[in-house]
Parts: sequence; C-alpha cells; structure tokens
Amino acid sequence: MQTLQVDLGERSYPIYIGEDLLSKAEYIVPHLAGRQVAVVTNETVAPLYLDKLTSALSSRNVTPIVLPDGEAFKQWETLQTIFDALLKARHDRRTTLIALGGGVIGDMAGFAAACYQRGVDFIQIPTTLLSQVDSSVGGKTGINHPLGKNMIGAFYQPKAVVIDTSTLATLPARELSAGLAEVIKYGLICDEPFLTWLEAHMDALRALEGSALSEAIARSCAAKARVVGADERETGVRATLNLGHTFGHAIETHMGYGVWLHGEAVAAGTVMALEMSRRLGWIDEAERDRGIRLLQRAGLPVTPPAEMTPEDFLEHMAIDKKVLDGRLRLVLLKRLGEAVVTGDFPRETLHATLAADYRVMVEQISQ
Amino acid sequence: MQTLQVDLGERSYPIYIGEDLLSKAEYIVPHLAGRQVAVVTNETVAPLYLDKLTSALSSRNVTPIVLPDGEAFKQWETLQTIFDALLKARHDRRTTLIALGGGVIGDMAGFAAACYQRGVDFIQIPTTLLSQVDSSVGGKTGINHPLGKNMIGAFYQPKAVVIDTSTLATLPARELSAGLAEVIKYGLICDEPFLTWLEAHMDALRALEGSALSEAIARSCAAKARVVGADERETGVRATLNLGHTFGHAIETHMGYGVWLHGEAVAAGTVMALEMSRRLGWIDEAERDRGIRLLQRAGLPVTPPAEMTPEDFLEHMAIDKKVLDGRLRLVLLKRLGEAVVTGDFPRETLHATLAADYRVMVEQISQ
Repeated sequence: MQTLQVDLGERSYPIYIGEDLLSKAEYIVPHLAGRQVAVVTNETVAPLYLDKLTSALSSRNVTPIVLPDGEAFKQWETLQTIFDALLKARHDRRTTLIALGGGVIGDMAGFAAACYQRGVDFIQIPTTLLSQVDSSVGGKTGINHPLGKNMIGAFYQPKAVVIDTSTLATLPARELSAGLAEVIKYGLICDEPFLTWLEAHMDALRALEGSALSEAIARSCAAKARVVGADERETGVRATLNLGHTFGHAIETHMGYGVWLHGEAVAAGTVMALEMSRRLGWIDEAERDRGIRLLQRAGLPVTPPAEMTPEDFLEHMAIDKKVLDGRLRLVLLKRLGEAVVTGDFPRETLHATLAADYRVMVEQISQ
Repeated sequence: MQTLQVDLGERSYPIYIGEDLLSKAEYIVPHLAGRQVAVVTNETVAPLYLDKLTSALSSRNVTPIVLPDGEAFKQWETLQTIFDALLKARHDRRTTLIALGGGVIGDMAGFAAACYQRGVDFIQIPTTLLSQVDSSVGGKTGINHPLGKNMIGAFYQPKAVVIDTSTLATLPARELSAGLAEVIKYGLICDEPFLTWLEAHMDALRALEGSALSEAIARSCAAKARVVGADERETGVRATLNLGHTFGHAIETHMGYGVWLHGEAVAAGTVMALEMSRRLGWIDEAERDRGIRLLQRAGLPVTPPAEMTPEDFLEHMAIDKKVLDGRLRLVLLKRLGEAVVTGDFPRETLHATLAADYRVMVEQISQ
C-alpha cells in the first residue's frame, strides 16, 4: 500500500493506492464526520463492488444511490436523483458522499457534495484506470451542458482518495486503454523518464500486472498532486494537464458524449497537439512519432474522426474553458516532458494542424 | 457614501452604501476582471434599473439576462436559462455576473457564478431592503428543491456589494416590512442598543427617510460582516443569523414558496423563537413583547398561519440544514441582544411553543 498526499493547506488529503482497499474500513471510516453515508455508484459497478464497500461501512448508516451508467447521464437530471435520495433519507450537513465508480460518478458525486446543503464531505473510490490517475485527484467536479462539456461544476476537494487496483480486473480492455492515455500524458507534459518506463512496461500494464499498475498509478497521481498543489484553481500550470483535451473535447462534443471514450478523444487530441508542436518547430518528427507510437501501443485511436472538418473543430473549441477573453490558448509541448499553455501561435499553424492528414501520417509511422 | 469591509482573507470584499450608486461606474468597473459582463435581473427590476446600470457599464460587453420574478422561480430550470444565455453569448472564465435585484436574483446569480465553468466572479447590486441587509452579504447562494428551501447551493463570495438606497423608493411597502424583519433580527441577536434605535426610528424607516435607511442598512451589514468574518461556513456563530428561520422555513415550505414573503415568515418565526426563549426562562414576558411589538410596528405578521399544526412544523423542520446528525438545533435568545444555537432543550418546550396560541398572545399585547 502506498500513500501520497495532495498538499492544499487545510484542504490537503491523502491518496491510498493498493490491492483490496475497498473492503478495508481503516482507509475510509476515519474520514467520515457523521453517521450518515451515501454511496453514489452506477448500475455496472454496483453488482461488482457495492456489497463489499457496504460491509466495510457496517458501522454507519449507508444510503446506496445507484445511477444509470454512462457519460450521457452526466447531466442535471441525474444529479437531481442524488439530491432526491439524500433529502428523502434526510441526510444532514455532516453526511459524507462516497463516489464508487469511474470519472462520471466521481464528477457527479463530487459536484453533488459541493452543492448539497452548500457543501458536505466526499470521498473518491475510483474504479477505472482513467479516474484513478486523473479525475479522482484534484477536485474538479461537474456536469455537462448541451452546449459544452463540464461547463457547470465546482472546484471541490475530497477528504480522501482510495484507489483499489483490484477493481481493474473487471475493467473492459477499451477502458483500460482510455486510462493509459492520461498516464502517457503525464510523461509527455512533465516526466520524460516516465515515457521510457512506459515503453518498457506497456505490455505489462495491458496484461494487468499488479506491480506495474501500482507504479504507473502512483507516478501519475504524484505528478497530478504536484501540479494541483501548485495551482488548485487552474490559473496557470494546472492547465498543462489538459494536453490534448481542447482538441479532445471538440471530438467528444461533435460525436456526442459517450460515443468516443474521454481517453480515446484525448489520445487523438494529443496526437494533434504533438503535430502542432512539431509544426511550430518545438519537437521534431521523431519525437512526435515516439508519442504516437506509445499511444498506439496502449490500444488507442491516434487519428481524429474522419468526418470532422477543421471548421467543426474551431466551432467546438471556441467555447472551451481555456479560452480567455476570446483568445484561444492551447497546451503544447516545448519538448517531450515539458508542456506550455500558450495563445502565441500563428492561426495558420492551427489551421494546418486541423487540416493535416493524420491517416497518412500514421501509415507512414507504421511502415 | 459609506464603505464597509467583509474580512475574509483573500476573499475579502467591500460593501458600498449610498444614494444613486447604481449609475456610478467607479463603484463597479474596478471590480471587473474581463470585458464580458452578464447582468442577471428580473422582469420587475429590469424596466426600473437595467438601462441605468448598463449605461454605467458602457465600457464593457454586457449580456442582460432577464428572469421571471418570484421565489417560485428559484429553481434549477431558471438557473439553466442563465447558463444557456452565458454559453450562447460565449462568456469565458473571466466574465463577471452582476446580480441586480432582490434575494432570489442574488442567490441564483451567485450560485450560477459559483458553478459556471467551475466559478466566475460576481457582484451584488441588491435592490430590496431584505437583500441589502441580509442575503447580498456573506456568500450564501443557492436554489430551492421541492423537498426543502436552499437545499442546493454554495458558499461563494462576491467581489463587491453595491447598495443603492435610492432603489427602495420603488419597493412595495410589504417588501420594505419584510426587510425590516431582518434588520430587527440583528438587534435581537447581537445589538440591544440597535433595538432602542429602531424603536425611535421605525416610523422614519417606513417613511423611507434617507439618513435613517442608510444608518439601519450600514448597522445591519456591519453586524452581518462581523459574524460572517468570524465564521464563513456556518460551523458556529454564523448560525445565530438564522433566528426565526427554522420556524420561518417551515412556514414558507408548508404554505408554498412565495405565498409568504421570506421576511414575513421570519417575523412569525422570530415570535416563536422569542416565545420559546421565554418558556425556557431566558427572557421574560416583557422582553418577548418588546420584540413582538417592534415587529408589529414594522408592519409584519407576528402569528404563524392558523392552519399550521405542531406536526406540520415538525415535519418541515426535521430536514432543516441546522439539523446535525438527527438532532434539532434552534437559534434562541439568552437575553435581548444575545443569541445562542442550541439543541439543549426539553422536547416538551418545543412542542408547547409550536402549540401556543399566538393570536391570544398578540391580542393581550395590543390591549
């Protein structure tokens, strides 16, 4: 078992990483302020892990709240069912919400905790690789709006994050790959040696080897905790965590939420960020291809949807949260292992990046 | 013009109080981070003050958002129209929301600001006495839920509060009285000399005499700022601001939001808190009657709705936010000018308070 700390003054909290933590009361119960607990989960995760967790919480009054599964349900109506359940079971301000599931569950349970009676405690128990290495750490919570992803939400930190690596045994391979997109991201933006480690361990990770998974998760969370500790509300360096996300969000929005997995869209978006960084002369073709190859080996798509035009991208990118006063800012790579957030690039380079033929590019890499 | 300061470290902000501040750019524009501004107001206030404010903001891009008027609209669907308007006009994270209206507008615009893109700036320009002395200061924002008032919300502080006393000229007399309920509350909970001042100036206040209004507003805001500065998230002393509110919320919920004005429900609830404090032997009958008489002179109801039974009250009070782990806590008076939050009272005293005949009590006072 490893413990990391997210350092945010009075809002600091621990991240526990290890096997079978879900069934161990000692990692969860000390973080509960009152007797009431609501476990927010979904129809896919509940049959697998809800009983186990409820047993670990047998000393408390537990209200299970089981939501439908999928990004399409990350919206106000679903959030409302959480509030309904909490009010019907008369949960008061000392209740704790526990998110048991992937990123959608964590984002919704966290936002519900931020808003319920103007804020109650919550704990993250992420059960997908993506949520374990990314969304469960850092306090971003929220829901989607028909006009944009994550447009309604709050910065709201959990009291603890409990990462049980055993839950990855039941994760579909496609979702494991989606999580690896964010793992690779940490290497690209701030940890070049981690890229080398990933090149050596990619097969072990996809084969779910426990020690490799723990190492990759801990190293990812440590990177995220460092960045979030330096910039909780994303006024600066935190935005580098969004490498590939501006392009990726455009893909998700255009295709309809849930058609592409978030990590898949980020993977294709990361390839576009690599290509743009190359066009700006900051990385060379070999470095770009090194990133693309690693994403490919993780089982991820490395080309944007064939049907999306440059105009489609621009339309969706214009209301991204990273747009400040009308100016588009992007996360790009100065070199492998160093990201910058910048609006300082020629429009033509962006257009050329959006218009590039990624299929041909990837074919050439494969040869 | 008077300036007070709400002291909350890096979230501190000024309160400006004076005549015609609405049309003076110098109190508003310095608090705007970006070029975009959204003015959230309602159909009643917009025809009176929107143009005036928009002129003062002529150096910025202003999106007016005009909502229907009334507590009945303090709900998710109305909030959604704010998000729709912001996203359609492509407001980014540096936008500022300005609440122009009463408490409902302030609560909704503040909560919208707390949630939009995980938090943007906002400024309060309260146009009712109630919102000027209470809801615009202190950062409580939120909406109602069918199962409870203000159940969904956030603690989120404005960048500034601009109180233009001239707006009270267009306020219906009934709403002026509702505001006076909260003014009297400050005297009861923490400022006995203010009660004496109010007894001397109640007629002047109801006649809208400018200097009396400014003094009453400044003294109320100063009391609120003190309490909020000491306890932003209501873990202790801040709860004393809810004198009469637990009973009052039960009245509002039972009668249906908006049938009784908030201040009217608080006035009747305050009478119940006075009566309960008397039954506990903390204040005597003369002190109780002094409070009741002041509320009466302010033009406020001083008896709960005849149709409400003790059981109705208990049903609605059980899910009040001040209930901690199943135990009902109430704000009561140790003496005039000193409130306590306590769950330490016999259940029978509460039942007797709920069952008391307030009509007979008030008749006797009037004789």
